[in-house]
Amino acid sequence: MRILVINPNTTQAMTDAIGDVARAAAAPGTEIDCVSPPGGPRSIEGFADEALAAYHVLDVVAGTAGEYDGYVIACFGDPGLYAARELADVPVVGIAEAAMHMASLVAHTWSIVTVIPRVEPMLAEAVIRTAMTEKCASIRGTPLTVLEIEADIERTKRMMLDEARAAIEQDGAEAILLGCAGLGPIDKTMQAALGVPVLDGTGCAVKLVESLVGYGITTAKVKAFLAPEPKELVACPASLAPTYERTLSPT
Amino acid sequence: MRILVINPNTTQAMTDAIGDVARAAAAPGTEIDCVSPPGGPRSIEGFADEALAAYHVLDVVAGTAGEYDGYVIACFGDPGLYAARELADVPVVGIAEAAMHMASLVAHTWSIVTVIPRVEPMLAEAVIRTAMTEKCASIRGTPLTVLEIEADIERTKRMMLDEARAAIEQDGAEAILLGCAGLGPIDKTMQAALGVPVLDGTGCAVKLVESLVGYGITTAKVKAFLAPEPKELVACPASLAPTYERTLSPT
Amino acid sequence: MRILVINPNTTQAMTDAIGDVARAAAAPGTEIDCVSPPGGPRSIEGFADEALAAYHVLDVVAGTAGEYDGYVIACFGDPGLYAARELADVPVVGIAEAAMHMASLVAHTWSIVTVIPRVEPMLAEAVIRTAMTEKCASIRGTPLTVLEIEADIERTKRMMLDEARAAIEQDGAEAILLGCAGLGPIDKTMQAALGVPVLDGTGCAVKLVESLVGYGITTAKVKAFLAPEPKELVACPASLAPTYERTLSPT
Amino acid sequence: MRILVINPNTTQAMTDAIGDVARAAAAPGTEIDCVSPPGGPRSIEGFADEALAAYHVLDVVAGTAGEYDGYVIACFGDPGLYAARELADVPVVGIAEAAMHMASLVAHTWSIVTVIPRVEPMLAEAVIRTAMTEKCASIRGTPLTVLEIEADIERTKRMMLDEARAAIEQDGAEAILLGCAGLGPIDKTMQAALGVPVLDGTGCAVKLVESLVGYGITTAKVKAFLAPEPKELVACPASLAPTYERTLSPT
Amino acid sequence: MRILVINPNTTQAMTDAIGDVARAAAAPGTEIDCVSPPGGPRSIEGFADEALAAYHVLDVVAGTAGEYDGYVIACFGDPGLYAARELADVPVVGIAEAAMHMASLVAHTWSIVTVIPRVEPMLAEAVIRTAMTEKCASIRGTPLTVLEIEADIERTKRMMLDEARAAIEQDGAEAILLGCAGLGPIDKTMQAALGVPVLDGTGCAVKLVESLVGYGITTAKVKAFLAPEPKELVACPASLAPTYERTLSPT
Amino acid sequence: MRILVINPNTTQAMTDAIGDVARAAAAPGTEIDCVSPPGGPRSIEGFADEALAAYHVLDVVAGTAGEYDGYVIACFGDPGLYAARELADVPVVGIAEAAMHMASLVAHTWSIVTVIPRVEPMLAEAVIRTAMTEKCASIRGTPLTVLEIEADIERTKRMMLDEARAAIEQDGAEAILLGCAGLGPIDKTMQAALGVPVLDGTGCAVKLVESLVGYGITTAKVKAFLAPEPKELVACPASLAPTYERTLSPT
Repeated sequence: MRILVINPNTTQAMTDAIGDVARAAAAPGTEIDCVSPPGGPRSIEGFADEALAAYHVLDVVAGTAGEYDGYVIACFGDPGLYAARELADVPVVGIAEAAMHMASLVAHTWSIVTVIPRVEPMLAEAVIRTAMTEKCASIRGTPLTVLEIEADIERTKRMMLDEARAAIEQDGAEAILLGCAGLGPIDKTMQAALGVPVLDGTGCAVKLVESLVGYGITTAKVKAFLAPEPKELVACPASLAPTYERTLSPT
Repeated sequence: MRILVINPNTTQAMTDAIGDVARAAAAPGTEIDCVSPPGGPRSIEGFADEALAAYHVLDVVAGTAGEYDGYVIACFGDPGLYAARELADVPVVGIAEAAMHMASLVAHTWSIVTVIPRVEPMLAEAVIRTAMTEKCASIRGTPLTVLEIEADIERTKRMMLDEARAAIEQDGAEAILLGCAGLGPIDKTMQAALGVPVLDGTGCAVKLVESLVGYGITTAKVKAFLAPEPKELVACPASLAPTYERTLSPT
Repeated sequence: MRILVINPNTTQAMTDAIGDVARAAAAPGTEIDCVSPPGGPRSIEGFADEALAAYHVLDVVAGTAGEYDGYVIACFGDPGLYAARELADVPVVGIAEAAMHMASLVAHTWSIVTVIPRVEPMLAEAVIRTAMTEKCASIRGTPLTVLEIEADIERTKRMMLDEARAAIEQDGAEAILLGCAGLGPIDKTMQAALGVPVLDGTGCAVKLVESLVGYGITTAKVKAFLAPEPKELVACPASLAPTYERTLSPT
Repeated sequence: MRILVINPNTTQAMTDAIGDVARAAAAPGTEIDCVSPPGGPRSIEGFADEALAAYHVLDVVAGTAGEYDGYVIACFGDPGLYAARELADVPVVGIAEAAMHMASLVAHTWSIVTVIPRVEPMLAEAVIRTAMTEKCASIRGTPLTVLEIEADIERTKRMMLDEARAAIEQDGAEAILLGCAGLGPIDKTMQAALGVPVLDGTGCAVKLVESLVGYGITTAKVKAFLAPEPKELVACPASLAPTYERTLSPT
Repeated sequence: MRILVINPNTTQAMTDAIGDVARAAAAPGTEIDCVSPPGGPRSIEGFADEALAAYHVLDVVAGTAGEYDGYVIACFGDPGLYAARELADVPVVGIAEAAMHMASLVAHTWSIVTVIPRVEPMLAEAVIRTAMTEKCASIRGTPLTVLEIEADIERTKRMMLDEARAAIEQDGAEAILLGCAGLGPIDKTMQAALGVPVLDGTGCAVKLVESLVGYGITTAKVKAFLAPEPKELVACPASLAPTYERTLSPT
Repeated sequence: MRILVINPNTTQAMTDAIGDVARAAAAPGTEIDCVSPPGGPRSIEGFADEALAAYHVLDVVAGTAGEYDGYVIACFGDPGLYAARELADVPVVGIAEAAMHMASLVAHTWSIVTVIPRVEPMLAEAVIRTAMTEKCASIRGTPLTVLEIEADIERTKRMMLDEARAAIEQDGAEAILLGCAGLGPIDKTMQAALGVPVLDGTGCAVKLVESLVGYGITTAKVKAFLAPEPKELVACPASLAPTYERTLSPT
């Protein structure tokens, strides 16, 4: 089984780290590729970043048609998730939804601990879109920007643990979701320190793509996620042409 | 007051029609410009179309910084709405949210009647994002594609009226929202035929931008809609550079 | 366009202040009258006050049939709103719903800051009735009674700002709604001090009535807001007779 | 124990019938009085009727202070319920809420069958206010006006049974709530015909007032239902003066 | 009228205390029996305890068929409630649902104060199942285990009052529900100390069973609560045989 | 990895079939055992059946402590799920929740098609408990009892396909969940016939247990799912003693 993990931002060091996390979670026999799109912001910390990233994510999905058994979108806002589902015939799983579904199997309620507070509403939208409001005890930010996560990993752990503990003690959370793909490498360290399940969405999403493929189901192609209607695109990535223009060519 | 109405798709005839609708709704003293972005799909009929369009909508918003008192995003999925709010200092209103807010002032519950059924989940997502689930009696599609709306306007009216009547009689709707900007020109004809309020989002959004500007409030710049964090963009529209790179330049 | 703003309580000084606020928000060409009903409590600070006020509000609406293009009910519990919609053929907008709709266009979530805590459940009911629960971060009271608001305006501002800041910092509010019509005059002062949108419902409602009239829609007259069924009234305001007894008279 | 059942409309024949229903449900030792207010509409079939009735209901409650152990408001919209709770020290129960609470103890979901369809939104508001949306399978109207209920009781039963059967078969209802106090006399006939619990709110409310009094609890007097703040009333029922003006008199 | 109150745990002292509480709440003419099942845990403080207890509760209900006019299940998680409704032809009321319904008649919102924090999620599930989420301000635990309640009743009162006051002051609760049947004996003491309604579910449930029987309705036997389908049971209580094997015997 | 699949009913032929389904879904290296408990009903078609089954499921879980890496509870009401999570240190997944989570990754909304209509409320409770109400388009029954499923498999498929098609066409479902473990063997046949994803919970749950174990997380042991408090049990399965009496023995 071949899974393409897409880091929607364009910071290669983070892409490499996410790839390692994904490979660590993968089953024997699962092959993981991990890429950034050819364009987009260096990090995703808001709705504009997310919209820019989503566009280039679609370029990657369209440009790899037929090459993979499933896709993971590795940013906690799940940018371009529903759009990618239209383009692909194989399963596409976002790391936010993946972490939420997996956490709901091991905890009565859970919290998301993430980077700078301005992303909290973006993650709140992901929770609403995934219909997980009732399971989410809280979303808590830290002072960290996405690109500071790796700069001082001990400071990162300390800040994350502080907010995670507050979520457990004050908000009743029984599990902690790491609200940024860049936090993946510290999941097990945090889990050991906290004594509750700590979930990184990348690992969760890899397992869920494996599960969907293993059980033999893929995205429903009847309404919400039908392939796009054939139509002309203006100044869009060339990779999309085969999908979009499939019935526009002269007969 | 100057308002820029953005038709997120790239069909100029539709942009012209939307501009006419917007101008008809505008107050004396409101100046309306209406444009399509420089790129994107010819019509928006799903999540992928919407994601592609949103990207180019941001290019328009960023490229007109300082020129307008407010923006209208004239596609019923409100593509790029929250992202545009980050980029602009002036109000940005989507036509789906506009129609929902206005309809809630004149009807106990309302329904959306729209184009081909595959867009229903996209509109359902807009209803959820706007937190209007309790007010929405139903979303009903017709066999029309976006670009067929104007092709045979009598057929369009007939199909729209059939579903609108079903919404009123079977779903308890007291007002009808036109679920595509291209349907704007038939709002008053439908209202006369149905005897209930019929709302086109473009007209509603123009009035709401006028209201926000007139009352002196604009997008909150404290958390969800703060300007993007300064960061490098790769292969993104040049118009975004002043916003994104504002503090990256050497001092 | 002529709008009648009804202050449902019977304190003329407050009615005058609300009238000034309404006129300041009105567009050129909009004429504002502002009145109190002929009866009712001096202030509205609970469900009983509200029920008494609603009755007399209906007297005003029925007694001015045909004279105005729209009505504003200027008390944050929206007393008599749905009943007034039955009586009038023109739009009727409550200031609570108006502030909530307008705030939702500029803020991801918002809070209401109001007078004495006993009114909080009354405002909570208004939020529920308007189906805005998901957008409302909190409702916060102050020690002020309605009639103390103007007695020491500096104290009023100080108390309001304290709770508004708590709403922003602790509850995540991005905009503040002033939970009493009497607070209207301090909206811009508070907005300047807080750096977030501050919304007074009277101003919002005036703009929304202008918008509804300007766009050409009014209350749906098909189910919830049909004119009352013809029937005899006992010991009710004479102004209601033409509406209620319209088909009871011998032919 | 003495309970005052208030029929909020001013049709004495209906008041008499409701009194009979209430007495039939009462326990030995419970004394029932049943009255109409001194003013208000002959029947309640919408929001304006309800607002007019609520005002006069308050007159009755205030005017009987100290005389009863509890009150029942016998109209399915529960007009003036929260306001009456402020005025009374003893329990006040509305028949809509009473029927909903009792039905939830014997049925997984239930439906309301009522009079003319225009009251459906008014009852929907009562369901929302009582926070019973999840338990309510549907609200179904019949062609009957309130005052036609008794005119041809066989026709009434037939129409009610038709809609009740539709609620059971199509909407999954397991119990039927009679959506108008005037329907009380046919509860057992309908129950026998349908084979599911049929609940008249008047009977339910009498039992619940008895339960509250019997268990020794009454309305919480700490926030939502505190007695009204002392204040001057203009042109309001004299019965309210002792409550409203209690601390306004010179010392 | 004869009511069987079932204390689902197997601590006889607690059963005796619950019986006293039930008898104190009962109307003249209501006869109360109170029993523990023949098996199960000594106390119920989690989902496993609850599942074990539910099984034996069913044994009691099945084994007393025809003997009582109604049942009360006296544990705040309502163990086996829906299952018992299938087995009995007479009303079955759980004390959690009973307290929630009664509290909603006297308070705008209420809180549950209970024993050790680990039971909070179990009670949260009871709130969700009863569809009372909107009315529940909070669920607050104390350090008490169920069997410690009576060991030092002054300590119990002190801990309960501390959390109850926090619920009133911080969470906005207007009434307090005692989240364990063993707390029943202190309801009136707490009510006197707090000045808000304090509800013990056992008392509430006795009144509600009396109400249902008095008004003449019982569990709907059409879908959710139909008697079990006839089928063979393996190693289950013999008391269930008459119900389960009713149509399996040769004719 | 070793997974124990528990068929909560006591029909061995169905247990065998479920075991085959589970093994077909399992990854290489996953070993599946499938058992029925030593007691309980022959099939589970209501709340009483479910409560009886749950008790014996706990016996199985407690009696196999330390033997498995995870458990699957293979009945669509997820009987005993939360209780089993308290008893086990390894993941426990119910097939209803498993199917709901997996379906939400491939479909915008989905429906459950199941056996006789009386189980619909039981499944509705499972949807509510899993907090999946917004994703569930409908629950549809067929005339089939659980034990008739295999009696005439062609009739079963026909009835299931009829309701599945109705769910897709009338309710907007994009995926079908098989609402009984006994339906597992026809998942792929139905998927081929319908052209939408068809999910059997047993297969889904096996994949999710593999995912949880593979990613290295298990049930949170901090609040809701802590091991039971140590206490005496009366007449309960001996398998529970080591867990329940762990700290009751003399020191």
